[in-house]
Amino acid sequence: MTPATIFVGEFFGTAILILFGGGVCAAVTLNRSKAHGAGWTAITLGWGFGVMSGAYMALPLSGGHLNPAVTLGLAIDSGDWATVPVYIAAQILGAMAGAALVWLAYLGQFGASDGPFLGIFSTEPEVRHPVQNLLTEAIGTFALVFVVVATGQNDGLAMSGTGVLIVALLVVGIGLSLGGPTGYAINPARDLGPRIVHQLLPLRGKGGSDWGYAWIPIVGPLVGGLAGGALGSAVYAMV
Amino acid sequence: MTPATIFVGEFFGTAILILFGGGVCAAVTLNRSKAHGAGWTAITLGWGFGVMSGAYMALPLSGGHLNPAVTLGLAIDSGDWATVPVYIAAQILGAMAGAALVWLAYLGQFGASDGPFLGIFSTEPEVRHPVQNLLTEAIGTFALVFVVVATGQNDGLAMSGTGVLIVALLVVGIGLSLGGPTGYAINPARDLGPRIVHQLLPLRGKGGSDWGYAWIPIVGPLVGGLAGGALGSAVYAMV
Amino acid sequence: MTPATIFVGEFFGTAILILFGGGVCAAVTLNRSKAHGAGWTAITLGWGFGVMSGAYMALPLSGGHLNPAVTLGLAIDSGDWATVPVYIAAQILGAMAGAALVWLAYLGQFGASDGPFLGIFSTEPEVRHPVQNLLTEAIGTFALVFVVVATGQNDGLAMSGTGVLIVALLVVGIGLSLGGPTGYAINPARDLGPRIVHQLLPLRGKGGSDWGYAWIPIVGPLVGGLAGGALGSAVYAMV
Amino acid sequence: MTPATIFVGEFFGTAILILFGGGVCAAVTLNRSKAHGAGWTAITLGWGFGVMSGAYMALPLSGGHLNPAVTLGLAIDSGDWATVPVYIAAQILGAMAGAALVWLAYLGQFGASDGPFLGIFSTEPEVRHPVQNLLTEAIGTFALVFVVVATGQNDGLAMSGTGVLIVALLVVGIGLSLGGPTGYAINPARDLGPRIVHQLLPLRGKGGSDWGYAWIPIVGPLVGGLAGGALGSAVYAMV
Repeated sequence: MTPATIFVGEFFGTAILILFGGGVCAAVTLNRSKAHGAGWTAITLGWGFGVMSGAYMALPLSGGHLNPAVTLGLAIDSGDWATVPVYIAAQILGAMAGAALVWLAYLGQFGASDGPFLGIFSTEPEVRHPVQNLLTEAIGTFALVFVVVATGQNDGLAMSGTGVLIVALLVVGIGLSLGGPTGYAINPARDLGPRIVHQLLPLRGKGGSDWGYAWIPIVGPLVGGLAGGALGSAVYAMV
Repeated sequence: MTPATIFVGEFFGTAILILFGGGVCAAVTLNRSKAHGAGWTAITLGWGFGVMSGAYMALPLSGGHLNPAVTLGLAIDSGDWATVPVYIAAQILGAMAGAALVWLAYLGQFGASDGPFLGIFSTEPEVRHPVQNLLTEAIGTFALVFVVVATGQNDGLAMSGTGVLIVALLVVGIGLSLGGPTGYAINPARDLGPRIVHQLLPLRGKGGSDWGYAWIPIVGPLVGGLAGGALGSAVYAMV
Repeated sequence: MTPATIFVGEFFGTAILILFGGGVCAAVTLNRSKAHGAGWTAITLGWGFGVMSGAYMALPLSGGHLNPAVTLGLAIDSGDWATVPVYIAAQILGAMAGAALVWLAYLGQFGASDGPFLGIFSTEPEVRHPVQNLLTEAIGTFALVFVVVATGQNDGLAMSGTGVLIVALLVVGIGLSLGGPTGYAINPARDLGPRIVHQLLPLRGKGGSDWGYAWIPIVGPLVGGLAGGALGSAVYAMV
Repeated sequence: MTPATIFVGEFFGTAILILFGGGVCAAVTLNRSKAHGAGWTAITLGWGFGVMSGAYMALPLSGGHLNPAVTLGLAIDSGDWATVPVYIAAQILGAMAGAALVWLAYLGQFGASDGPFLGIFSTEPEVRHPVQNLLTEAIGTFALVFVVVATGQNDGLAMSGTGVLIVALLVVGIGLSLGGPTGYAINPARDLGPRIVHQLLPLRGKGGSDWGYAWIPIVGPLVGGLAGGALGSAVYAMV
């Protein structure tokens, strides 16, 4: 993998992830959508299959991280930090592109709804409490990265379709089980990129972009991802 | 693969796809069906497992495209256009056969319901706006074909059960995330074939076949599929 | 595979299938069950994962048919009819054992509910019409067996976990898409065995066993399965 | 595998299982959770993907049992009992750690809800009847272990991602089909560890820990698991 393939893979892979993830939030919450009211299980499946689709597309190009917390967690494990900035830049830009595509795909539904619309772009907590919200995001991302590191141990499954399926269902599981309090950003690029797009788009009634909360879905996932990568590195050094 | 195996694979594969896809729409919307009211998640799973079943059946015969947008997208990638007409003819005829089977399987439920019934056969937008509807269909099909091209990169997974599973869940994801505005045709044969059958069938109270809309789920998916195939071809040329 | 391993595999595999399938019907419909009202998607997933579990268990012993329609369809394809009676006898007896286990697992819920209880054991049509009901059952089983024959073509996937996963999701798809009119027996043993158990069990308020309908979920699936096996055999002879 | 890798694999794997499983119960039942009211299907998927995630993580370290009933069932099959105490100790301690993480991730939601909270930690029957509850737990665990033993027969799938996926969906199936009466502990560590944590945590309004019931989700699963392991061992000795 070269910096160029990494950039291309992470940019398009993260764009697909956010197109699906933001898309399902739009589908379930906006008026005049066939999926209106489809519920939390639908939302978690949409995000999970977005991870699957983006990671599978990016696999031959970049390994399919799509998430700075995963990139850092794997760097802790591998010791290779050289391409980390390329990964993260492509992830944030790709997330922005994906959020813009959601807007284009749901133009009519945004027009038929009243807002606010931040929940289609970025996460918001149910009970606002910085320490608790950080903790929830860190725990969810810890689980994500700890299990992702395991894909490298299981007969090279990380580079296979089966490994991608498992990571996709892992993300569905995190959404179902740990998404209740904060909406499971578990990925700084997934939250920051679309929040910037929400700020920039001329959406009627879109509401504020809640920048006061924006650091939590960055710091929480990074801390959790580093912890998950470090623990994974330590335990698999035993075998 | 010969033109004969391609025709047989695509005809029966697309028939199975529409039998499942039209079937789940009938199951969820018609009266006196055990699945009445099962909701959008059920609909997207039914379509996704229809893709899985049809593609898996057709895999050894035709590669299991079941969709002119996929056929064109893969032709852009491979440069091989010779069998494209066979693929598309078989897909449209197979979709018609599948729609007729849905009618036969749900005879009693059609009789117990009032119509209109177009939604069981073809797609209809929630907010009718040609440019927006084209955009939504093009974006969804772009994602579909871009990821389908990736199956050819991942250790030949396109020709395996795992690749079929991933494409099936990709289609579930597109339905959940991008199906809200237009009902995600993302396949010209899936929409046109059953629309012809709706026109022809003697269903009491079936309503109009909405031919004014019919070009959108043809043009949008073809444009999106070509774009996805071209982009996929370009990015995987890097590795 | 010997007649003894076939009998053991099919008996226990079909028992597991019915334990899960009848179990999810009990879970969703009986009073004082945590799954009460979980809906049609839950029912189809329960049956599908029952197929997966029973077939996976039986795979090394009997190939995991669990269904006389599958056994006949594969015999049409292979030309080997010698062990067909062993398969079918084990399937019916296994289905009876599974239905009895459902009763034991839900003793308290049967006691807290009023009945009738036939729907937990066997299928009943929503619109009673012999020709239509036969047609629905034949179409569903045709799709099942046609796709199951394909597992033998895809790199021997029939004997792998991936093949089992695909067949499981195929059955979920048939349930979602074609289960609305008759409850998708698509398997004579699945319907007949538990119907006998319903007749025999001393359940208060259980209602009649509806023997007048019992031939339809036997004849319809057998006709559809033979057609699916014959067509599968013909099309894969092309490759 | 050494006792050290076994302990580490089972401790962290079971912690992940309970983090997801207890987490989805918290997500669906507590106030001010985005998943509030998501229903039984969501709960069973959360537990199933918890099994998948924990077992996949633990696979290279301990084989990923995460359950004393599985450990005993596989010991019956293999005849190797030496490491059984290490497995069980790590499973109980890991389940306690996972339950504590659920509490940390849902601090705000616990504070916004009234309790009792035992259902987020351990199982409770809908109809309290020791013999019936034992029977339900034994039948569910019998099915679990019988099918898990099969993973060792299917081309070594027990040690692969596909095998983990099948076991995960098996557990979803047991939840959907056999979870109605008692909440499907089917795992003594899954029930006992979190019950101890419920006893210890200073949760306002948490209610009693129901120690009078606690022996049933221990004894029922152990009996069922031993039966499933013994039967699996016997039937696969035939091939």
